[in-house]
Amino acid sequence: MKQNLYDNPEFFEYYTRLRESKITFNDFVEQPAFRSLLPSLEGKRVLDLGCGSGQLAAYMLEQGAAQVIGTDISTRMLSLAPQHPQIEYIQLPMEELDFPGNSFDLVVSSLALHYIEHYEVMMQKIADWLKDGGQLVFSTEHPIVTAKLDKEGWIEDEGGERLYYAIDHYSQEGIRRAHWVVDDVITYHRRISTLINGVIESGLRIDAVLEPEPTAEGLEKMPQLVNELRKPSFVIIRASK
Amino acid sequence: MKQNLYDNPEFFEYYTRLRESKITFNDFVEQPAFRSLLPSLEGKRVLDLGCGSGQLAAYMLEQGAAQVIGTDISTRMLSLAPQHPQIEYIQLPMEELDFPGNSFDLVVSSLALHYIEHYEVMMQKIADWLKDGGQLVFSTEHPIVTAKLDKEGWIEDEGGERLYYAIDHYSQEGIRRAHWVVDDVITYHRRISTLINGVIESGLRIDAVLEPEPTAEGLEKMPQLVNELRKPSFVIIRASK
Repeated sequence: MKQNLYDNPEFFEYYTRLRESKITFNDFVEQPAFRSLLPSLEGKRVLDLGCGSGQLAAYMLEQGAAQVIGTDISTRMLSLAPQHPQIEYIQLPMEELDFPGNSFDLVVSSLALHYIEHYEVMMQKIADWLKDGGQLVFSTEHPIVTAKLDKEGWIEDEGGERLYYAIDHYSQEGIRRAHWVVDDVITYHRRISTLINGVIESGLRIDAVLEPEPTAEGLEKMPQLVNELRKPSFVIIRASK
Repeated sequence: MKQNLYDNPEFFEYYTRLRESKITFNDFVEQPAFRSLLPSLEGKRVLDLGCGSGQLAAYMLEQGAAQVIGTDISTRMLSLAPQHPQIEYIQLPMEELDFPGNSFDLVVSSLALHYIEHYEVMMQKIADWLKDGGQLVFSTEHPIVTAKLDKEGWIEDEGGERLYYAIDHYSQEGIRRAHWVVDDVITYHRRISTLINGVIESGLRIDAVLEPEPTAEGLEKMPQLVNELRKPSFVIIRASK
């Protein structure tokens, strides 16, 4: 069964408030690096998998994209998304999407693919949907973060000082359950080699891999982001067809 | 200054005895995966960077390679290497090697590039030395292992039970000093993104990335290898020109 975390009322309320604060890992770690990997968007037809409340879709339109199709499993998240004649939203789990081959110049997916069970199947579909010469840019939780079965990584001393980040069960891919506002938030752990080989086996070519560090503004506004230098939270991959 | 660890008499004695035992991480984790990534060797001209005592060079000859050039900084290691009319050995640090462009069908390097300070420079040279259509296969210590400044990763409880592997200073690339038989063994920590992007920026295309698990025989003969399922020790990359 596909979990629809963002339609959980309690989680949704927490998450929308967090994102509205604009003081988040997304704002200061993931999105700056993600956007740095985007190709020129001028006139491009773009698919955004797991678009949430549409901030990235709106940004890509500002950058000249001709059309963005944003998809998300969550009705609540899509209800927040900006309406625009060049953005079309589809409310579906990404596993159920179906497009003709060679439909998009660019496919993006920000922090959504770790919710997907069948990664290789999704990669094959994305590669098919891309036009020749098109690009894929996606981010996902870093395998260093998802490895441990309980995903409780930071080990602290008695005074609450973070000593180091703990890894275990790295080879054991599959479901991880964690408490994030609500219980039993399910993500899928995959090794970095699995993430990369899945892209390559779909026929795409790896252009770059990023393990983003916080921006200077982020380190100022969220001092705890200094811990991102100790262990990475995200990995971002760009590939071309 | 380039460290010549393997010419240290104490280290050399330990290391040669270890390798002669054939009960090692190389035998049961790294080499099986490494060899699985090698292309057909029939008639190939091969460069082996950090060839040590020449086991991989000899294997590649058995597999049909026409010529192998093995290079190593250590005179002692090379003194153990099998002599063969189709193998030529060069005793030099790999940073000082110089070959014409388009010289090799295949460049291999097993667990040597983590001793090299200027990784990107080395990748540029390797890409130049490769013929069009040629391959690079190399292994290195996994960034999960090299991240912590003291490289002392396993955290144990009071009874000596391994609880988890500790990560810290992941973003801080550069020198790591560890005790391995002798003091101050120097390796260089690089993030997985740095390893991959260095290959891509040299003009090569990533074919596959492996984070090898122990073989069944390895798990039987070295029960401690079960810990390789908890955190990976090596990463192996294959790329093509």
